[in-house]
Amino acid sequence: MNSALSISQGVAEKSVVNPNMEAVLARRRRREISVEELFSGILKGDRTALAQGITLVESSLPEHQEKAQELVQKCLPHSGNSLRIGITGCPGAGKSSFIEAFGVYLINEHKKKLAVLAIDPTSQRTKGSILGDKTRMNELSANINAFIRPSPSGASLGGVAQKTRESILLCEAAGYSIILIETVGVGQSETAVHGMADFFLLLMLAGAGDELQGIKRGIMEMCDGMAITKCDGENVNKALAARSEYQGALHLFPATSYSWAPRVIATSAITREGLPEIWKMISEYEDTVKQNGWFSQNRKEQQKHWMESTIHNGLISSFYKHLSVQKELLLAEQAVIEGKESPFKAANRLLKLFSQS
Amino acid sequence: MNSALSISQGVAEKSVVNPNMEAVLARRRRREISVEELFSGILKGDRTALAQGITLVESSLPEHQEKAQELVQKCLPHSGNSLRIGITGCPGAGKSSFIEAFGVYLINEHKKKLAVLAIDPTSQRTKGSILGDKTRMNELSANINAFIRPSPSGASLGGVAQKTRESILLCEAAGYSIILIETVGVGQSETAVHGMADFFLLLMLAGAGDELQGIKRGIMEMCDGMAITKCDGENVNKALAARSEYQGALHLFPATSYSWAPRVIATSAITREGLPEIWKMISEYEDTVKQNGWFSQNRKEQQKHWMESTIHNGLISSFYKHLSVQKELLLAEQAVIEGKESPFKAANRLLKLFSQS
Repeated sequence: MNSALSISQGVAEKSVVNPNMEAVLARRRRREISVEELFSGILKGDRTALAQGITLVESSLPEHQEKAQELVQKCLPHSGNSLRIGITGCPGAGKSSFIEAFGVYLINEHKKKLAVLAIDPTSQRTKGSILGDKTRMNELSANINAFIRPSPSGASLGGVAQKTRESILLCEAAGYSIILIETVGVGQSETAVHGMADFFLLLMLAGAGDELQGIKRGIMEMCDGMAITKCDGENVNKALAARSEYQGALHLFPATSYSWAPRVIATSAITREGLPEIWKMISEYEDTVKQNGWFSQNRKEQQKHWMESTIHNGLISSFYKHLSVQKELLLAEQAVIEGKESPFKAANRLLKLFSQS
Repeated sequence: MNSALSISQGVAEKSVVNPNMEAVLARRRRREISVEELFSGILKGDRTALAQGITLVESSLPEHQEKAQELVQKCLPHSGNSLRIGITGCPGAGKSSFIEAFGVYLINEHKKKLAVLAIDPTSQRTKGSILGDKTRMNELSANINAFIRPSPSGASLGGVAQKTRESILLCEAAGYSIILIETVGVGQSETAVHGMADFFLLLMLAGAGDELQGIKRGIMEMCDGMAITKCDGENVNKALAARSEYQGALHLFPATSYSWAPRVIATSAITREGLPEIWKMISEYEDTVKQNGWFSQNRKEQQKHWMESTIHNGLISSFYKHLSVQKELLLAEQAVIEGKESPFKAANRLLKLFSQS
């Protein structure tokens, strides 16, 4: 919680090493920054303001949340003008190396401004394990056109996802034209990322047998494109074979409702092979779905879905915070698991407790 | 709602054609049936009692719901002794014909008692469109060892799914050892069925191009087995080719966490080819997951999940029934879709309205 006031997570600040006194003063100054100041800073593309804005969004303190909502609301009319790319893959697929290589490629070759966000609900303790290891993204994190932000911490996926969604809006208002949203391919976070991305890219390691265990089933069919990573050195043949296999398998999948056939591309973060093809695929996708209306329809549905899921999360969190519910919950769960009470009866009993006060 | 008191949906009653007067008397009698009577009838395997019990479960009237919960609670200790098989497939894959053929096979060759339930949230109007067409299941619906019940009607998938879950418990208490739960392969109902089944079977039509559009992406990776239907006549070669293709594709999928490699089997409802292999696959699956503990672990998790989703559904439905929320909801949605209000701000505004009274 108290991390809410620190802005140390933003890369923009990483070179600021304050002596003690200066840090105290700086912290005091930061506290006084108004929403209006943050907003105008963000609009100007000021990275410090953006990082501070996101810190505000990530804070759980009620007074910060109020300010954060005000800031998000202000940024809203200036948001939306980016391409939001979701990236997932099993641990070991080389997500960080890929994002480093792909990001630098987009900045250098296509003059993009790139923000990298992450959703990792498991990172509560480490506060952003995926992007925490900045050494993997040396070149990108030093680049003035890249803004890298680790996963927000939070108790629930719903909470983490909401913070990331709001951060997207802030990054867009700050002029970032490509938003990469990264997630580990386990649990339900990919579904959350899929629900906030325009394009969903799955990274796969060639010849991964056991590695695939880490990926949740159902993810493969969700993707709009797949990249076989580490296609270099001795791996090239294996990667190319995997490419064909997956491309064949994707043909068997149900077609997307938006006239897009996902492609599989082999790539290497070392040789940079495949990066232009991946960008070409994503660009063609963008053209296709902007032309056939899916792009804006999907965004609208996502907006509506965000509202609904915020409502659901709010309801559920107030339920589980309820004292009488908390007292009864574990006992009820146990009775249900042991088959002593029907799930419906237990649920209704708890709901009654909740509504009674 | 008034259909709650009619028992005409159960197959058991289909031969009962009452003259007017008798019908009135019968209806009066039915009203007086106590939970205790229903329960003892169900335990004896009485089909009329089972059909009436399910009708009670499906009723939305509060007094019926109370009785239904009592009945479900009574049946609970006698439930669980079945294999619950979820079946999905795109429209046109021949679900009804498959279930007819497979059901008759299980009854005749393996002396099973079979209940067929359905989840079809879109069937609100037609009250059970999938199984409504009984002519497709002539042989099965006439069989004394089969109990067929169309999809319950209901406003939401959550509501429909809950009713089906409770019906499963009743059928099990009535001694049905195989429960087939059928769903159309669109929307989110397959996820609901997956969440209440021990084994999830996906039916696919060979050479289906556009037909696949109807299936939701992600379903293929959820299945424990796949059957290519209509493997007969001129279709045989196409079906066998599809079988190999899908079998190859399934190998590329992430492995299940429960040590099971899904198989693909070609089958025909006409020649009955493949039915023994499908049953063999399901039996081997049952042995495997009972041995490695997944079967009971999965059931426990499902129980817990049922409780949670009943809570969530209850919270959400009381939210949307709230008068001040209803007044504001459409406006808020519109503002969100048009990008005038942030989804989070709108949601929080509505949540405040809800909590204020």
